[in-house]
Amino acid sequence: MHFTSEQHLDDGVLEREFTLGEIPGILWTPGSASASAPAPLILLSPPPLGLRKVYPRLAARALHSAAHGYAAATIELPGSGDRPRWPAAEQAVADLRRAMGAGEPVGDEIIDALILPLVERAVPEWQAALDALLSLPEIGGPVGYSGGVISIGTRLAVVEPRISAAVLFAGSFIPRAMFEEARRVTIPLHVLLQWDDEGNDRQAALDLFDAFGSKEKTLNANMGGHTGVPQFAGDAAGQFFNRHLR
Amino acid sequence: MHFTSEQHLDDGVLEREFTLGEIPGILWTPGSASASAPAPLILLSPPPLGLRKVYPRLAARALHSAAHGYAAATIELPGSGDRPRWPAAEQAVADLRRAMGAGEPVGDEIIDALILPLVERAVPEWQAALDALLSLPEIGGPVGYSGGVISIGTRLAVVEPRISAAVLFAGSFIPRAMFEEARRVTIPLHVLLQWDDEGNDRQAALDLFDAFGSKEKTLNANMGGHTGVPQFAGDAAGQFFNRHLR
Repeated sequence: MHFTSEQHLDDGVLEREFTLGEIPGILWTPGSASASAPAPLILLSPPPLGLRKVYPRLAARALHSAAHGYAAATIELPGSGDRPRWPAAEQAVADLRRAMGAGEPVGDEIIDALILPLVERAVPEWQAALDALLSLPEIGGPVGYSGGVISIGTRLAVVEPRISAAVLFAGSFIPRAMFEEARRVTIPLHVLLQWDDEGNDRQAALDLFDAFGSKEKTLNANMGGHTGVPQFAGDAAGQFFNRHLR
Repeated sequence: MHFTSEQHLDDGVLEREFTLGEIPGILWTPGSASASAPAPLILLSPPPLGLRKVYPRLAARALHSAAHGYAAATIELPGSGDRPRWPAAEQAVADLRRAMGAGEPVGDEIIDALILPLVERAVPEWQAALDALLSLPEIGGPVGYSGGVISIGTRLAVVEPRISAAVLFAGSFIPRAMFEEARRVTIPLHVLLQWDDEGNDRQAALDLFDAFGSKEKTLNANMGGHTGVPQFAGDAAGQFFNRHLR
């Protein structure tokens, strides 16, 4: 992990860009974080749109997290942003757009081709990022996950015991295989669903919520479109982390 | 409205039993409430089980509300507790129990007979209670509603302009006619759903949430069974009132 730039944001938050091998990422640490007072960490998993594009939203969430004493970190998803192009993934996106543009139902093959390889590639990268981040003296446990592509969060919740609690966004296509995987999730979950998100399959989101094996799981559904999560819902997600990461 | 008893609870909260005509009720006012600083009011609508039986749950919610500066009040539903027996309602409950006991689907006729007359009778009583409560110098506006039988809350939200925001519990049978009525609700709503409540028709609750016409509506679904609303979900409902009743 190599830091490539740093700047101080409001409230003493230190923002550092880094690379982890070929993968670019960003780490935000609160002014209070130090080797003697390591901060708990929230992994901010982005949508697959490129970190530059979603930077404003991620930075706002990181600042909000830092105000409550958390470090936050993100890495670029495979095939997104400045990372090498991934022709198979681009083909899957093209197939999806074609089907949606033609008003056709989005078949399982398209969803599987779009999501499953992304999960397979991204999850080990997030685990490698977690190794690197937790080796920094200013970062301690516990670790929360907040993101992005819900299947990545689901898989991580199953395979990565260092993640104690997760906020998941129910706004992306879900392969059928993930419903079975969801039953093996046991950590506390807080699932955000934008109820009137036209690009989202609401029933699939409800089915996935139902499938999660966690004893503590909350579905928090709100109005406002795909990116219109209300401030109070963001606050509720923050309170969820406060309950589980302290 | 006649007060029949009073006692001081923790934190200076005054609990007064009253009768409104034949209807028994309870009013809780925070120690801070006075004619010069009237408290906003939360109507705590009970389930139709009798106030004595649900007193512990209601009193806990009233104390929680009072800690945030709210007065809280409840009245007995028609046919419940010490109120005169209501043979038609008892027949509807008996029909429901027979159908459920026999493992039969609960038909629309049973649900309509169970809920619609209750709504017709209860809503004007809650409006009369509101008249009486708002005439007390220690109580001011705005008014929130929190309850109970979701169809009563839905009807009240449509017909009673003095109610500014409502927390609804998705845990009772819903007549088909209420889905149409729900579209006319415009006040902010916070709907609590106990996801694994076996006595509850989850799909009907989701459909009703979808039908509400409110621009701000939140569905907060949690685990824990019918009466097992987690503390943090109660806190979130309290924060909803803090956003809308201040």
